[in-house]
Amino acid sequence: MIMHVKEPDSLAYEDFIKLALKEDMPFGDITTDNLAIESKLVKARLTGHEDGILAGLSIFKRTFMLVDKDITDDNFQQYKKDGLEISAGDIIAELILPPGTLLKGERVALNLITHLSGIATLTDKFVNLVGKDGPAISDTRKTIPGLRVLQKYAVRVGGGTNHRMSLSDAVLIKNNHISLAGGIIEAVERIKARIGHTVKIEVEVSDIQGVHQALTAGVDIIMLDNFSPDKAAQASEIIGDKAVVELSGGINLDNIRDYISAGVYIISIGALTHSVKALDMSLHVVD
Amino acid sequence: MIMHVKEPDSLAYEDFIKLALKEDMPFGDITTDNLAIESKLVKARLTGHEDGILAGLSIFKRTFMLVDKDITDDNFQQYKKDGLEISAGDIIAELILPPGTLLKGERVALNLITHLSGIATLTDKFVNLVGKDGPAISDTRKTIPGLRVLQKYAVRVGGGTNHRMSLSDAVLIKNNHISLAGGIIEAVERIKARIGHTVKIEVEVSDIQGVHQALTAGVDIIMLDNFSPDKAAQASEIIGDKAVVELSGGINLDNIRDYISAGVYIISIGALTHSVKALDMSLHVVD
Amino acid sequence: MIMHVKEPDSLAYEDFIKLALKEDMPFGDITTDNLAIESKLVKARLTGHEDGILAGLSIFKRTFMLVDKDITDDNFQQYKKDGLEISAGDIIAELILPPGTLLKGERVALNLITHLSGIATLTDKFVNLVGKDGPAISDTRKTIPGLRVLQKYAVRVGGGTNHRMSLSDAVLIKNNHISLAGGIIEAVERIKARIGHTVKIEVEVSDIQGVHQALTAGVDIIMLDNFSPDKAAQASEIIGDKAVVELSGGINLDNIRDYISAGVYIISIGALTHSVKALDMSLHVVD
Amino acid sequence: MIMHVKEPDSLAYEDFIKLALKEDMPFGDITTDNLAIESKLVKARLTGHEDGILAGLSIFKRTFMLVDKDITDDNFQQYKKDGLEISAGDIIAELILPPGTLLKGERVALNLITHLSGIATLTDKFVNLVGKDGPAISDTRKTIPGLRVLQKYAVRVGGGTNHRMSLSDAVLIKNNHISLAGGIIEAVERIKARIGHTVKIEVEVSDIQGVHQALTAGVDIIMLDNFSPDKAAQASEIIGDKAVVELSGGINLDNIRDYISAGVYIISIGALTHSVKALDMSLHVVD
Amino acid sequence: MIMHVKEPDSLAYEDFIKLALKEDMPFGDITTDNLAIESKLVKARLTGHEDGILAGLSIFKRTFMLVDKDITDDNFQQYKKDGLEISAGDIIAELILPPGTLLKGERVALNLITHLSGIATLTDKFVNLVGKDGPAISDTRKTIPGLRVLQKYAVRVGGGTNHRMSLSDAVLIKNNHISLAGGIIEAVERIKARIGHTVKIEVEVSDIQGVHQALTAGVDIIMLDNFSPDKAAQASEIIGDKAVVELSGGINLDNIRDYISAGVYIISIGALTHSVKALDMSLHVVD
Amino acid sequence: MIMHVKEPDSLAYEDFIKLALKEDMPFGDITTDNLAIESKLVKARLTGHEDGILAGLSIFKRTFMLVDKDITDDNFQQYKKDGLEISAGDIIAELILPPGTLLKGERVALNLITHLSGIATLTDKFVNLVGKDGPAISDTRKTIPGLRVLQKYAVRVGGGTNHRMSLSDAVLIKNNHISLAGGIIEAVERIKARIGHTVKIEVEVSDIQGVHQALTAGVDIIMLDNFSPDKAAQASEIIGDKAVVELSGGINLDNIRDYISAGVYIISIGALTHSVKALDMSLHVVD
Repeated sequence: MIMHVKEPDSLAYEDFIKLALKEDMPFGDITTDNLAIESKLVKARLTGHEDGILAGLSIFKRTFMLVDKDITDDNFQQYKKDGLEISAGDIIAELILPPGTLLKGERVALNLITHLSGIATLTDKFVNLVGKDGPAISDTRKTIPGLRVLQKYAVRVGGGTNHRMSLSDAVLIKNNHISLAGGIIEAVERIKARIGHTVKIEVEVSDIQGVHQALTAGVDIIMLDNFSPDKAAQASEIIGDKAVVELSGGINLDNIRDYISAGVYIISIGALTHSVKALDMSLHVVD
Repeated sequence: MIMHVKEPDSLAYEDFIKLALKEDMPFGDITTDNLAIESKLVKARLTGHEDGILAGLSIFKRTFMLVDKDITDDNFQQYKKDGLEISAGDIIAELILPPGTLLKGERVALNLITHLSGIATLTDKFVNLVGKDGPAISDTRKTIPGLRVLQKYAVRVGGGTNHRMSLSDAVLIKNNHISLAGGIIEAVERIKARIGHTVKIEVEVSDIQGVHQALTAGVDIIMLDNFSPDKAAQASEIIGDKAVVELSGGINLDNIRDYISAGVYIISIGALTHSVKALDMSLHVVD
Repeated sequence: MIMHVKEPDSLAYEDFIKLALKEDMPFGDITTDNLAIESKLVKARLTGHEDGILAGLSIFKRTFMLVDKDITDDNFQQYKKDGLEISAGDIIAELILPPGTLLKGERVALNLITHLSGIATLTDKFVNLVGKDGPAISDTRKTIPGLRVLQKYAVRVGGGTNHRMSLSDAVLIKNNHISLAGGIIEAVERIKARIGHTVKIEVEVSDIQGVHQALTAGVDIIMLDNFSPDKAAQASEIIGDKAVVELSGGINLDNIRDYISAGVYIISIGALTHSVKALDMSLHVVD
Repeated sequence: MIMHVKEPDSLAYEDFIKLALKEDMPFGDITTDNLAIESKLVKARLTGHEDGILAGLSIFKRTFMLVDKDITDDNFQQYKKDGLEISAGDIIAELILPPGTLLKGERVALNLITHLSGIATLTDKFVNLVGKDGPAISDTRKTIPGLRVLQKYAVRVGGGTNHRMSLSDAVLIKNNHISLAGGIIEAVERIKARIGHTVKIEVEVSDIQGVHQALTAGVDIIMLDNFSPDKAAQASEIIGDKAVVELSGGINLDNIRDYISAGVYIISIGALTHSVKALDMSLHVVD
Repeated sequence: MIMHVKEPDSLAYEDFIKLALKEDMPFGDITTDNLAIESKLVKARLTGHEDGILAGLSIFKRTFMLVDKDITDDNFQQYKKDGLEISAGDIIAELILPPGTLLKGERVALNLITHLSGIATLTDKFVNLVGKDGPAISDTRKTIPGLRVLQKYAVRVGGGTNHRMSLSDAVLIKNNHISLAGGIIEAVERIKARIGHTVKIEVEVSDIQGVHQALTAGVDIIMLDNFSPDKAAQASEIIGDKAVVELSGGINLDNIRDYISAGVYIISIGALTHSVKALDMSLHVVD
Repeated sequence: MIMHVKEPDSLAYEDFIKLALKEDMPFGDITTDNLAIESKLVKARLTGHEDGILAGLSIFKRTFMLVDKDITDDNFQQYKKDGLEISAGDIIAELILPPGTLLKGERVALNLITHLSGIATLTDKFVNLVGKDGPAISDTRKTIPGLRVLQKYAVRVGGGTNHRMSLSDAVLIKNNHISLAGGIIEAVERIKARIGHTVKIEVEVSDIQGVHQALTAGVDIIMLDNFSPDKAAQASEIIGDKAVVELSGGINLDNIRDYISAGVYIISIGALTHSVKALDMSLHVVD
């Protein structure tokens, strides 16, 4: 069963798609424009070529609307929706579009939906491995520049949750901060003296001693950085419910199950967004 | 031996990095800003954690210059350069920066350099598999929106070459065009009647019959779409030097060597840019 | 004693100042440009005409740097700094600038610094009224469009703290949300099922019953909306340390002292940023 | 009786509202998006909580249209219009909107309309004090950066008139110009030799001697800077109809009536736009 | 007979028109806005005052749509279309618009259509002089900054073809490149070693020796720079079908016929876009 | 003798040049970048090929600074300056630049300086024909979109003056306004009731009756639209010093002398900016 995930507002990504379209045709599409095809509507089919989780269908559709202001939801017949599993061969949607609109928008639209579906698919794999009672799976700030809103949406579609969106919305005291501030306790104290009451404080620790210091300092979240399953379990027990326990660093599809019983609340994984394998799809004119 | 590849002009990507920095701190870095660290310079080390090809060092450096206008090339000690192999553990560069500049720029800078180095590394693998006398390895338009200039640079750094940059610079008559125009010959004729003399015409064919039609129509490049090695060899022989032969579709690290002797001039691979595995690196303060 | 407040990164406001400068001279400064004054440097003095707290001096200086790329910190002699009290008649800074740069930048620079100092001054008044052991004083999202980063900085300079920066960084379940979701408990439940672990949840309540519901639902912060001092005290006692208590609505310089002993942790005040009286200053050429 | 004032073209402020919306939700509205409310339309009421003059209703409406492209004028039932007096408790408009659109747009929309109505209200107070036969009330360039078009519109709605829009549209020779040019007469001469025939020339004078010099130089408008009522009357008499007389500096609601009989044509007041008290309003869902 | 030329996508020029409209009314149209005219629709007529070729009608119409979102194609009655000859006195189109929309959009709309029609008209003159069997007429990169897409479209409308769109889409090795690289052959070799397979290589030569070197180097196009008709004929004969022959430099309406029999394939002319005489038109309200 | 004309602030045109550079190399300069030239400095010479008036040298220089942040005024040796006559063969400036910077910036830089010098040259011709005691020569709003600031600067350099910059800075009641308002007198009355005191009012008249109405209405400037020399003289005499007399419509280099004795104050000429012949220059590497 799927929990519906709200799509991002088009305001948040529309300018980015325009930029992508202009990147793809700074001076128009010289193939299509010079082909002089009659502009009666054609039907095209968006087909999946791999099994995975669909993400980004509304962004896919919006791309064509930005190529051509006359396109509306009525130009699309949608057979799947974001968050659903698709299998190789599935028809995801049919498009009834003027040929110019189809040919000019298709590459950008496909680049987006295959990338986002790739993220949702990978996230879903992690989520399935830990199981419904296991820790939550979260992304990081290791995103592709310009795509953070969309990538983080795809993670949610895949059943994951979002870590902070940016440097502006939650405090995460990392290694470099700690060494510059002179220790965990000093770093937390300085932040607490200045930070607003709506902001959570997280600290990254690299060993059990760090866990104790973080508890002494008093923080909302403790991130165990590169802990072995045993060490993670030990840390979780020490922390108990005094802070949320997050595990990060070096977790992949092969080793994540070793951490299920470590008692952590959340596992954050950079690869969800920094090493994405696009989910193969194609868009073909049908008669 | 490496052929030096010219870095993109900063004009071509600077606004994009600014956008990425604003995406990462719409309201500042609340951890660093509230840590109230003294702003004397600190040294940090950019270290590789995987073997691969470095790409994007100047873009990495420019990121910090955009965070802080006082940063210049003098703030960096560079031990490697784009195009060189790096090994896990290699120190790529040292940075002497104010701590705020370091902490605010690091994530965006790392996101870029690890992504671009991932592309160069994958490209290099393909290039090595085909060998110096084999076909050239080319990218496609299957790029991450917003990153085309940078991704295509990374492909060049990895020893590949670039396919067309956008819909505006070369004609590529694909399946959808052909079916809309009513055949290869008709499509090529229409284009030739209108296109400027500086533009090459490429046509995608899906079988030997298409090859013959393309030759009849007269084009600069023939793209063999999803051909088996045998069919590709057959097509190459038919084409001879009447057109450049490009092979595309379904080529990966496992099967590319089967195509080496097929006589094609170039192999284009979408995965170079649409399914990138970041090359792991870190940036740590050193004392 | 002042706690130093970090200035916003210029990246966060520079484009906004450029926009303001272009707004003020879409086609240049026709008075100055046609005055044909020799461009030897002149000295000008930034003088305060009211008592208050200075905020925005670096933004003031950056304005002139954006008018003229040759201006650096060396063109300014600074006698005061952000966060300090200034009195009517105080010289805040001296500027040594080409006359064109001075005359073109002055209005935008003054509009910014007098506005921000007005905010810091008002915030400081509230902070002084509640005293160092009283509740913290916080801003809201009732800011002037485009100025949020700068206005919230000015609040910090005045000794206040920041509420959430935007709709993206903390959950605040308000009246309208509650009535749409069908009650406090239902609303909180829905949010908790979806929200990331780095985000705090705040709920606005309008009576004691709401306080009990919020506690049942389990939230990080309870905002008492338009509570009388007595009711606020009652609510604070009920809440204890189970949530942070925030008071909001109708608080002004005349009534804030009535709330000091109500036991609330923070008082948020929209007027800090929506009803700002600029702090009077002038900039005059001196010989 | 009200003279209808033309609203600014949306072209002039739409990008600014988009910027404000993105400032308020760089990564979406995490409260609303995670509340998973059904999206059937809801009715909300815009209610005034103070007496004043309404300004900005079309800008308020446009804000919701920018959040959601499907919103049109039909989603609003308007009970008041710009320029009309509203009283505490008045229903200004009713909105029938999807809940997401309502909740995401409301803060920016309210921030704008309460700010602009605050300006219109204050302007109206000045206009009423001087009476219909008194001098006109004008704004200045002391506006909030980014808001000039909207603030100056609100001044007109309040019955005021606009001074120059920017440094590009009228010449105003001020103190600093005069001292740099070496005197009023020299400054005016230089300008006249270069300026286009569609531009008026105004000069700021600080004493009666300046008035005489300005008349000798020949200008369109003489601004009396910080003149007492008596001095202003004396200056007006000297000037007669040889120039338009503008009074500026230190005029407020308490002292403006002292200047009514001073014979000036116009009084310009920076506080109209630099020290605005928002006019309180709220937007609540009704059943 | 006219070959239909595809209009540029509005995506490619819409932001530019917005910029032009804001340039023309940074603070609104103070004449129209203060005229307080009733906003019932009025009819206006776009009339040609010179003989020429029409270009830019869809761009003209789009301008009004950007002033006023309610304007659609239905507000225009079109009597001519791009590429057709118009004569002085011809009614090109009728517009049924609100008066404010008409008056605010007309200058920008006219500036664009008269400029583009001027280009099409001049191109058409060259095309007619060389005749249907003569060389093609091409533009250059000597365009007005910001207008390249539109100017190059107008050249196509006038029957010309486009040279490369930018520095990014074709190689043109010019004088300065050759002297920096140390000769034609060396320059071509360096480029060939690096350039992608979809890019044509052109080299500019200034004498017959250069022609030989270019042939030796092997290029797609040879540009004869400032050749006399005789020399051009000699060069064409030498080149034969080994490369496309382009003639450039100093060609004008007076001397172009001397080159018809020189055997060149294409003549490129900077003046088509750098020295444009607008084609006179007017837009008047009719009753 | 030349009156020095102040150059526009770079703030006013820098973004436009960046746009032009990106237009000219959306994906870099593939010729130069692949030429792999050593980057030692080279000298290039900007040479004039026609007699005319130079305009835009600082804009020319700024273009290279935007290509390459390390370029300063020191990279240029300037032999001429804006406003001076140049003759065919004159060396205008020498540039010492890295070859990449030179080759990437040259086209945009030349496109700008030749266009602006073309405007200055044409303006100068008109100014010389009317002589120093004749009417002033003014531009109009018939400018190339995006270039208004620069084109109007070039007119001033050529000895002309500027008409209004945009619809926002002066009232010009034209034919269409008059017919919509129901007559000159009614139109002027409506405007006067609303317009600010810093704005001049101009009205366009098409006959002597219009002149009388304009005088009755009371305006600052009367524009005689398409008047014969005799009619213009008659109108000037009627108007006397009651308004500034501007002549417009159909004035060219052949007929302007017929109007010298017509007593008009200013002649405005659209062709100065809408039909510009670029002034030929070249930029060549010298050894």
